[in-house]
Amino acid sequence: MERKIYIKNMPLEQALELIMSRLEKYDYFQIDRETIDVLHSQERITSSAVIARRSAPHYVASAMDGIAVKASSTYGASEINPIKLLRNKDFIEVDTGDYVPREYDAVVMIEDVNYIDDFAQVIKPAVPWQHIRSVGEDLVAHDMIVPTATRIGPYEIASFRTAGIDSVEVVKKPLVAIIPTGTELIENNSDDMAPGQIIESNSSMLSGLCQQWGAEAVRHEIVIDDKELLRQAVREVKDDADMIVICSGSSAGREDYTSSIVEEFGELLVHGVATKPGKPAILGIIDKKPVIGVPGYPVSAQLIFNIFAQAILYRKLGLTLPEPERLSCSISRKVPSSMGVDEFLYLNVARIKDNYIAYPLNRGAGITSSLVKADGYTLIERGKEGLNAGDNCTVFLKRPRYIVDKTLVCIGSHDMSIDFLADILQKRHAIRLISTNVGSMGGIMSLRLGETHFSGLHLLDYETGDYNESYLQRYIPEQKWMLINLVKRQQGLIVKKGNPLQISCLQDIQREDIRYINRQKGAGTRVLFDYYLKKENIDSSSINGYNREEFTHLAVAAAVKNDACDTGMGIYASARALDLDFIPVTEERYDLCILPELIEEEILETLLSVINSSEFRDYTSDFGGYNLESSGKLIHKNILLPPKPSPVTPNHQFI
Amino acid sequence: MERKIYIKNMPLEQALELIMSRLEKYDYFQIDRETIDVLHSQERITSSAVIARRSAPHYVASAMDGIAVKASSTYGASEINPIKLLRNKDFIEVDTGDYVPREYDAVVMIEDVNYIDDFAQVIKPAVPWQHIRSVGEDLVAHDMIVPTATRIGPYEIASFRTAGIDSVEVVKKPLVAIIPTGTELIENNSDDMAPGQIIESNSSMLSGLCQQWGAEAVRHEIVIDDKELLRQAVREVKDDADMIVICSGSSAGREDYTSSIVEEFGELLVHGVATKPGKPAILGIIDKKPVIGVPGYPVSAQLIFNIFAQAILYRKLGLTLPEPERLSCSISRKVPSSMGVDEFLYLNVARIKDNYIAYPLNRGAGITSSLVKADGYTLIERGKEGLNAGDNCTVFLKRPRYIVDKTLVCIGSHDMSIDFLADILQKRHAIRLISTNVGSMGGIMSLRLGETHFSGLHLLDYETGDYNESYLQRYIPEQKWMLINLVKRQQGLIVKKGNPLQISCLQDIQREDIRYINRQKGAGTRVLFDYYLKKENIDSSSINGYNREEFTHLAVAAAVKNDACDTGMGIYASARALDLDFIPVTEERYDLCILPELIEEEILETLLSVINSSEFRDYTSDFGGYNLESSGKLIHKNILLPPKPSPVTPNHQFI
Repeated sequence: MERKIYIKNMPLEQALELIMSRLEKYDYFQIDRETIDVLHSQERITSSAVIARRSAPHYVASAMDGIAVKASSTYGASEINPIKLLRNKDFIEVDTGDYVPREYDAVVMIEDVNYIDDFAQVIKPAVPWQHIRSVGEDLVAHDMIVPTATRIGPYEIASFRTAGIDSVEVVKKPLVAIIPTGTELIENNSDDMAPGQIIESNSSMLSGLCQQWGAEAVRHEIVIDDKELLRQAVREVKDDADMIVICSGSSAGREDYTSSIVEEFGELLVHGVATKPGKPAILGIIDKKPVIGVPGYPVSAQLIFNIFAQAILYRKLGLTLPEPERLSCSISRKVPSSMGVDEFLYLNVARIKDNYIAYPLNRGAGITSSLVKADGYTLIERGKEGLNAGDNCTVFLKRPRYIVDKTLVCIGSHDMSIDFLADILQKRHAIRLISTNVGSMGGIMSLRLGETHFSGLHLLDYETGDYNESYLQRYIPEQKWMLINLVKRQQGLIVKKGNPLQISCLQDIQREDIRYINRQKGAGTRVLFDYYLKKENIDSSSINGYNREEFTHLAVAAAVKNDACDTGMGIYASARALDLDFIPVTEERYDLCILPELIEEEILETLLSVINSSEFRDYTSDFGGYNLESSGKLIHKNILLPPKPSPVTPNHQFI
Repeated sequence: MERKIYIKNMPLEQALELIMSRLEKYDYFQIDRETIDVLHSQERITSSAVIARRSAPHYVASAMDGIAVKASSTYGASEINPIKLLRNKDFIEVDTGDYVPREYDAVVMIEDVNYIDDFAQVIKPAVPWQHIRSVGEDLVAHDMIVPTATRIGPYEIASFRTAGIDSVEVVKKPLVAIIPTGTELIENNSDDMAPGQIIESNSSMLSGLCQQWGAEAVRHEIVIDDKELLRQAVREVKDDADMIVICSGSSAGREDYTSSIVEEFGELLVHGVATKPGKPAILGIIDKKPVIGVPGYPVSAQLIFNIFAQAILYRKLGLTLPEPERLSCSISRKVPSSMGVDEFLYLNVARIKDNYIAYPLNRGAGITSSLVKADGYTLIERGKEGLNAGDNCTVFLKRPRYIVDKTLVCIGSHDMSIDFLADILQKRHAIRLISTNVGSMGGIMSLRLGETHFSGLHLLDYETGDYNESYLQRYIPEQKWMLINLVKRQQGLIVKKGNPLQISCLQDIQREDIRYINRQKGAGTRVLFDYYLKKENIDSSSINGYNREEFTHLAVAAAVKNDACDTGMGIYASARALDLDFIPVTEERYDLCILPELIEEEILETLLSVINSSEFRDYTSDFGGYNLESSGKLIHKNILLPPKPSPVTPNHQFI
């Protein structure tokens, strides 16, 4: 078996320049036009200047409700000496927008007219052309309403119609043919997907991007890994499409299919770009049109597509690329990066007091949730070794700034009730809560650095048997903080449904046939687990899997569920969520430590009100495994003045 | 004939509060939900938190192309002491994404493997779980992917699909029924529209806004001014619609229809709000749902709709209103405003050197072109008398800032060739040119204040017979400027096709049967006209219409075309554009005076290159009436170093 290892590693800007100049040479960027009904032109791009066909108004019009008069007939009028005008001779009645015949040259407002039988009395002389809209006051025939390359919106549509334009010439939407390839891909979700099967989702992501940019995507059905079938697919789409996208999968073998088929039909320009993610990208030309082979990992796929397809399609639409807002941020932690690649690092961003802090998201190329969470990205250019914690970086935002400004950050231990808080904050108060799970000790460190608004903690003090407070007093003695209980929860061993290995207590996990999965160092659950190991005299080296780490309760439960291990310690709620069995070990306190000085007062009040809301309590108790007897209770505060409890009005529309 | 004059004048926030609280009382804001295919969910709003149904990956997966091994079988491997593993026993081959069976716990990258027959040699020990994606690395079943009230985009779709979600619960699009009313309205454009007829365009504008907000609009056909027919229309739509919008026209009579029908069917809350534009708005409730009567003037209509409908619909969608970017600007001229109303003033915005300057647009409520041009608005709150030139104001932007930053401003005299420049700058260089016609003397004043990047000028010096230069030397002696000829053009009398009144020279315009239309004071054409009046000994008081002013050549031509007058002075190009006849009087020079220090170097170079481009020359000479012999020629510069002529590369896609 021989498999090629791709070696070409072209810098991004060189790859982009290469394909753009080649396409230019082939006159690919000539605008394709079509003429469409103005009423269906919203979001389309004008392909020529739009010129008024008719003046608006196209007649001399009254600008008011009133009477049209000849101004000279009102000269001398005053309160003492009102002038009487005869209907249909000296004046006619007009409403706003009515035609003013050429025998009249002024309009008197209805408020200034007194009717007496067939006469109208005016008490003020009219100035010639008063309250009259001249022909073309809005637009004159042959005025340019908008230039070429304008995106049409509601106001343009109204203006076009007003100026006598029913149809408008616009740039034709480029047609992007997307071919998903891969024997492992399946079209529809089912509950019995085999290991190794993957739902095909990249094509819908890329189609969605096309839609946002103003291009049209058409998706080919999935092509299994068979060169002849892929060849056939390319043949099918290549005549109609303006761009061919082959979702070429991420394995070297499959890329070779793609690259060799591009060579067969046309010209292979680039195989591999020096970016992270996105490296195994393919660029080529078939029939003077671009072909892009995007990697199989979704984060890589969107990056390659955002860079190359967007640049090509915008140019094809006659537009320049939109410029995302830039925000100068300080990065929350060290991010080493390879010297050889341009790395696009996806980030959450929040304002902590007066600083914007950027929190790197999971960098895995397969992590779609990083794309969902990301507020933007920063670029770590090649030749740089990465970023150190606290380094300044420029973040290119994908969300508007006002959303970033209304963001709460919770870094610390994981509990599902944090998600409930997030949901309530979002739907009732439009406040975003982003949470990063770094374990309780990680939370303490973030509090100490002032990089989080609050932290979820469940750190057992071995000596006192109490939670969190002694740690806070030791690690952040100088800061103002308040410790509030969120929930109490059951910790225990999560085991398969029906407990097939008959695990009954902690001692059992030393058995050779049992594969354990642990939580990461610094996690409260790890601290708790180690406490019980010590208490029960269990040697960690006797546990198969003690060094295998997961980062959340749900991840531990999922590992059990999917037979990646047999048991792990976690909370009851996770076991229940995945329909697993649970051997209780203890109940622990899970608190929030809040730094009130880092949060805007109004947002802090909202957070406290949500923690104390019946909605949160209902949400949590419905989920199961939680004890809410002290939820919302202030455990301790290292602070003089507590924020006043407040009347926060939530939005009630989601019921 | 009796017509009601509306007297209620409710402050905006009070009107908004009134209708919102009433709708709240009726539980109108309860979310309506529907479940739709994830593949069609882009731009929709989640109506509940979206929870992963399946972990992704749902199996232990290889993160690399390579071989799956048991890590312990590789311990001790080194370059000197490679370890040999037997295929399908000690290892299996895996591609990225492949399932790693439970007998293996690590993956060795293909690059680190040497195949010899059925054996694979490794020269480095594997660490347990290396290059393995654990179950749920991306998402764990029951993870919250996004909270309620999230707008779904391409990444959310990919993530939902990956997490086993095929359908998603979203907020139902509110249905907005729009009823256009007015006997003067017509459905389709035609070339023989009678005076007083108006094309119905407000409904398409309001529908377009609904589409942008995520609501669905359905339009009723036009209802003529007949109470029973309007009653019938409301009856038809009221059961299905979530909001009824009656485009109630702008005349007092018609509003009364609307308000009395709202009273008939439900409750009239507000008739008249204290805003400008937008005053004659109607708010009410029918069947516990909102009814909005929007005024007939398009600028008023969109304002009322943007304020009330947007607030109601966003809330109904479970969202808070988006916050437009704010920009602090200095206003270019005095804007008096009525103390009794909140005035929304639409503006262009550009950066002149380091300052953002806001240029008020035509404030007429019928001016759709102001809406098209506007970059945003500022609010002049009631109780304020307006703004003085130079005052600071906060502009709420509707365009992204980077577009504002790439804007050139031309304030001065009008020529159609400025539109050609604008079109070329936009389509080839993505530079926006906004031009305001204030006449040549107005242009000089703007140059003097440094409020424009350049000005179009055609000011004849009575004494020298030359153009512009002497004015500049007199009025802006201290500034650095360059004067460049753009075109020479024919000025003359624009008359009706076939010249029915047989006007043959300037002397004729003194005839009693001839209605003249003049240009505004300070316009170069006015200066020229007055010069010729003097030269030919014509007394301005002998001219019927000397005081009637229009602001552009095209407006003068349009007035002639539509029989609002018989003749006026203007350029040949306007006469030709409207298919009118033309009696030449003289050829004049039309120059641009540029202030190079106020323009970014790159943009200045682009401007100069466009002025000198063959595309501009072709555009202009095709239009007719222009002499381009000195076009692009530098007439004079009051400056030491001229900007270097430069190689600017335009986009060639529009051919």
